[in-house]
Amino acid sequence: MNQVEVCFSPPLFDEFAKTNSIVVVVDIFRATSAIVTAFQHGAKSFIPVSTIKEAKELKAQGFLAGGERNGEVVKGFEFGNSPFSYMSEKIKDREIALTTTNGTRAINIAAKGADTVLIGAFLNLQALANHLQTQGKDVIIFCAGWKDRFNMEDSLFAGALTNLLLNSGKFYSDCDSANASSLVYRTGRKNLMSFLKNCSHRKRLTHLNLEKDVEYCLQRDITDVIPVLRDGKLVTLICRH
Amino acid sequence: MNQVEVCFSPPLFDEFAKTNSIVVVVDIFRATSAIVTAFQHGAKSFIPVSTIKEAKELKAQGFLAGGERNGEVVKGFEFGNSPFSYMSEKIKDREIALTTTNGTRAINIAAKGADTVLIGAFLNLQALANHLQTQGKDVIIFCAGWKDRFNMEDSLFAGALTNLLLNSGKFYSDCDSANASSLVYRTGRKNLMSFLKNCSHRKRLTHLNLEKDVEYCLQRDITDVIPVLRDGKLVTLICRH
Repeated sequence: MNQVEVCFSPPLFDEFAKTNSIVVVVDIFRATSAIVTAFQHGAKSFIPVSTIKEAKELKAQGFLAGGERNGEVVKGFEFGNSPFSYMSEKIKDREIALTTTNGTRAINIAAKGADTVLIGAFLNLQALANHLQTQGKDVIIFCAGWKDRFNMEDSLFAGALTNLLLNSGKFYSDCDSANASSLVYRTGRKNLMSFLKNCSHRKRLTHLNLEKDVEYCLQRDITDVIPVLRDGKLVTLICRH
Repeated sequence: MNQVEVCFSPPLFDEFAKTNSIVVVVDIFRATSAIVTAFQHGAKSFIPVSTIKEAKELKAQGFLAGGERNGEVVKGFEFGNSPFSYMSEKIKDREIALTTTNGTRAINIAAKGADTVLIGAFLNLQALANHLQTQGKDVIIFCAGWKDRFNMEDSLFAGALTNLLLNSGKFYSDCDSANASSLVYRTGRKNLMSFLKNCSHRKRLTHLNLEKDVEYCLQRDITDVIPVLRDGKLVTLICRH
């Protein structure tokens, strides 16, 4: 049996980091949903960088650039973190430098504390669960949160994935965060959209007129793509089960 | 209207710290339950210290000493953090130096980021809620957690207090952690003991043969005592409503 644990926010990740584990990074609104969408539409790779400066340097070298700060697209960049912006012919076989407020930071933190870093979203939830069940490794679901705070949407995803793994019979959990996430998901799963109506971050997205993005990011299982970090680049995992 | 927010773990507290707010520190198993119990039984004050060395120095100056590491009493100290050890005549009007794995650390972190630091437990829940409703200040419920991790019992308390404050009509919350805690509490409140049966920390306490302590700490409203931090010392708050 392997364990599944949930880390609610980047400052807590040190307590979870361990060798021989798989970390699933999640930033539902919207970085990891956008990354999954981009690969589904043919992107070749993402380089997650922490600063706008780094992304600009890569852009100057011929990369496409995606960047978001406080929910808004960085000026001069091709993409922000709206999944819709990545549904485009122009990303096919291209490499993209990406920097976002929470998501890329969490990916880079995870890279230092795990053998394998995968990217999760509701969009690839079942594919991810299927893959993790074949790996024989402990799993840490790492919520990017919102500016180092716990957020509801990432925890809902953590609960959904925890439930699938526990139900497979191949995982157990002694982790209170995993148990709490699972409970929150079981309460909200019938209508995630309406469940999230009281969440601060979703209110913020509504304010930015991103209702359509929120709805898109809450869809389950629309792709089998699983992004994986290899040598500092996200590429698509080729699964051989 | 004032806001109520919940901080799940010490490394997240920086994001919550603000002036003109009241921080309620909670470490249900068992530091804050023990502190409340000690005041109920006549203790004069507590000095929360971070290290065993500091507690020993105060003990040498005539203080009683309470200390716990990993759930066990520090060798040579009068008390650990079992509430039962403080139900004693010998604490009457005495000053106690206290150091615990999670609770006293959280108290000292809170002291740097708030005007007012209060001590919460299920034992004084309603008294605390009544007091907070008269203060006209934002409230941050600060869960001590377990070694920097989220834990279920502190979050259950956070949810219980959040509910009481929201129901008073004097508070609102945009905080996802407060909403999640409230939901977890509403799910578990009918039988906290059975709800906690799957929690890692409670399992640990069972292992240490502390079932009796767990049961005691989950009792609601057995005292009106509210400990408050004044100049580095915890004393009882005299409420004038």
